[in-house]
Amino acid sequence: MEFLEGVKKKEIFAIRELEERKPFGEKVSLQGAVHSIRNMGEVEFVILRNREGLFQAVIEKEKGKWELKEGDFVTVRGLLREEARAPRGMELQVERVERISTPSEPMPFAVDKWNLELSLEAKLNMRPIALRNIKERAKFRIQEGIVRAFRDFLYGQGFTEIHTPKIGAKGAEGGANIFKLDYFHKPAVLAQSPQFYKQMMVGVFDRVFETGPVFRAEKHNTKRHLNEYTSLDFEMGYIDRFEDIMAMETGFLKHMTAFLEKEYENELKLLKVTLPKVDAIPMVPFEEAKRLVSEKYQRPMRNPYDLEPEEEHLIGRYFKEEYDSDFVFVTHYPSKKRPFYAMDDPADPKRTLSFDLLFKGLEVTTGGQRIHSYPELREKIKNRGMSEEGLEQYLDTFKHGMPPHGGLGIGLERLTMQLLDEENIRETTLFPRDLSRLTP
Amino acid sequence: MEFLEGVKKKEIFAIRELEERKPFGEKVSLQGAVHSIRNMGEVEFVILRNREGLFQAVIEKEKGKWELKEGDFVTVRGLLREEARAPRGMELQVERVERISTPSEPMPFAVDKWNLELSLEAKLNMRPIALRNIKERAKFRIQEGIVRAFRDFLYGQGFTEIHTPKIGAKGAEGGANIFKLDYFHKPAVLAQSPQFYKQMMVGVFDRVFETGPVFRAEKHNTKRHLNEYTSLDFEMGYIDRFEDIMAMETGFLKHMTAFLEKEYENELKLLKVTLPKVDAIPMVPFEEAKRLVSEKYQRPMRNPYDLEPEEEHLIGRYFKEEYDSDFVFVTHYPSKKRPFYAMDDPADPKRTLSFDLLFKGLEVTTGGQRIHSYPELREKIKNRGMSEEGLEQYLDTFKHGMPPHGGLGIGLERLTMQLLDEENIRETTLFPRDLSRLTP
Repeated sequence: MEFLEGVKKKEIFAIRELEERKPFGEKVSLQGAVHSIRNMGEVEFVILRNREGLFQAVIEKEKGKWELKEGDFVTVRGLLREEARAPRGMELQVERVERISTPSEPMPFAVDKWNLELSLEAKLNMRPIALRNIKERAKFRIQEGIVRAFRDFLYGQGFTEIHTPKIGAKGAEGGANIFKLDYFHKPAVLAQSPQFYKQMMVGVFDRVFETGPVFRAEKHNTKRHLNEYTSLDFEMGYIDRFEDIMAMETGFLKHMTAFLEKEYENELKLLKVTLPKVDAIPMVPFEEAKRLVSEKYQRPMRNPYDLEPEEEHLIGRYFKEEYDSDFVFVTHYPSKKRPFYAMDDPADPKRTLSFDLLFKGLEVTTGGQRIHSYPELREKIKNRGMSEEGLEQYLDTFKHGMPPHGGLGIGLERLTMQLLDEENIRETTLFPRDLSRLTP
Repeated sequence: MEFLEGVKKKEIFAIRELEERKPFGEKVSLQGAVHSIRNMGEVEFVILRNREGLFQAVIEKEKGKWELKEGDFVTVRGLLREEARAPRGMELQVERVERISTPSEPMPFAVDKWNLELSLEAKLNMRPIALRNIKERAKFRIQEGIVRAFRDFLYGQGFTEIHTPKIGAKGAEGGANIFKLDYFHKPAVLAQSPQFYKQMMVGVFDRVFETGPVFRAEKHNTKRHLNEYTSLDFEMGYIDRFEDIMAMETGFLKHMTAFLEKEYENELKLLKVTLPKVDAIPMVPFEEAKRLVSEKYQRPMRNPYDLEPEEEHLIGRYFKEEYDSDFVFVTHYPSKKRPFYAMDDPADPKRTLSFDLLFKGLEVTTGGQRIHSYPELREKIKNRGMSEEGLEQYLDTFKHGMPPHGGLGIGLERLTMQLLDEENIRETTLFPRDLSRLTP
């Protein structure tokens, strides 16, 4: 009988190992894709690409001729030598090449260009190839770092990770923006958010979070909307005030920037990202924010109940100019624009104990305190003229007791977009879904 | 202007702090739900429940009367004293109680019973309340640990985490087992797996993983099937042989057991879980596995192309009896039962370089090496009488070169179920979706 005992160390070097150990003069093997080839007559510079980045290999004609082409996947073996002119201060003098796979057709465009010269449409149509460009893929490494930081921080704060269903019965919260499907001849919908589930789980785990897809059938076609996105959600019980939720998010952002700086240094450098300051994030009530930007930028207020995109942009500008902050919490949104479960401000029931976080003038988070009292929750549902149908199990949870709680949802692709100063959310979405895009 | 600067330490103690510091004789505050109350006349024992577990508080009648009831959420303050008879060797002598929330109705059943005496149906119908039982919720803490271990291990092995879309255009792989929906008047489907995406991303990141929901419109109604579940998927490039994938999974299982032992000790104890041995996992070819159990247990082979549930069970039993292993990799499944992208065995094209991992006689993983050559992939599609329609972008990725690769998908709820020796997968699914269940 044969047995498996775990991962065996391959005789292949990681680039990081070479950079750390610098075994100049030794024979080493590397694996990668042929990213680009520069033929200089007597020598050929072959740039290899693997998950760690690029590495320069040199083939001297006299050593052998391997007829490599871009897109080949190879194992190369040779002498590692110090070379000040090479990007990492070293290069591999190739002595043996094993081609482990070869493409059927050349690249449809130059993936080895430093900046990929393609329209967004073209990039998205050929996403799996376009991402072989070093800078394009770095965006998604940083996105990975954001999610890791979110989970790491929350584990450390006593949160439990949950996995809630994405298919459900039609609930009362719904509206026109829900994708519908047939579930074994029963009507069903795709989850717009894990809202009800995470609240119900506060009664079990006190603090919970989820990182997963959410679905919005909104007919927006803008640079900042998607119809499917990754939501970073948390919900926490035993809060003393709704500011506790914003404090937790601030804590996450601090952890995130420190974590990215430490673990994703290469990608940050590659994309020339300047991490935002997050040591103190200002918070401003909704109405005051509207007034401040209306005064400073001589812009008349139109909609008293909501922030127009231009207003959000100006609020971002205001707090950058006045407080040098890329972030601002806008608090106390009008009750009529928030869902029924939002807790109204005892000092003014027309507004809620809720907030949005704006990052460089764009909303990246919506959150707030929720009603935890069963009678109050039913009262609010009644006052809104809503039905309790479809909410039975949600309401039952409150009937048997719930601590004061609140939470938030962060749009991962938006947060990434703002962090990287991208103009379109599709740049930071691996495979975007929008009104016109269902593939690849 | 007010600013948020991160999480402030509350003046509330964590149970762990009390157990570590043992500040006997000091005044401390704790928060929790009233899990149970035992009235002894002069004193009342109030068991508090919070995310960390249970803690005993004692109210002496002379100190005050607070009329607590089960399901209240409270902050209690008092003197911490050593008490050998209390579960943690200490208890809180209550001096002040602040009730922060109170239920409208008593619990519908005794959540404080050590073993919840409810049918599975009843538990699922009242999931958010049933999970307030200490043992019920511990299952999902362990499930969290499995997912954490999966990610931690793979980050350490150079994998990149990806987030792929769950809504897509109808692909060629499909069949009857796909949920369909209307996507802005275009036909769309829910992802059965991230298979094509993770393969395409191997060309970008070399090694990728995803932990997310998958959807199967299968009309099974068994103890081990769900229509939505969490899949732990990875895909790795530059493999030398398909055993590399199994070695990676073995590495994960080793990491998982060590991680659970270290970080989820309390929950393992609570549920009396014996972690499986994973130092060496046997592997056996499909046909040999069939022959072995047929001989040992005198069971005629019926279906030569697939394993019946009873056969899986017997294979599990065989390897437990003969090798004392809870796990066994069954390899080389017949080509006709595997998808088109599975790589056939060069030694016998009727079988594939694929495997299932059985854990205590149940399949918890399916994986294998994939075809990476563009001409071979097209050939296989053609030989199967399939169309390339809907596969254009998947195939284009191979056209431009892909390294040898393979991967697997682990059913999270199944793995949890087997680890905890549960009889029904719904026991280890937070909110199961099956043929008849769409709520809560």
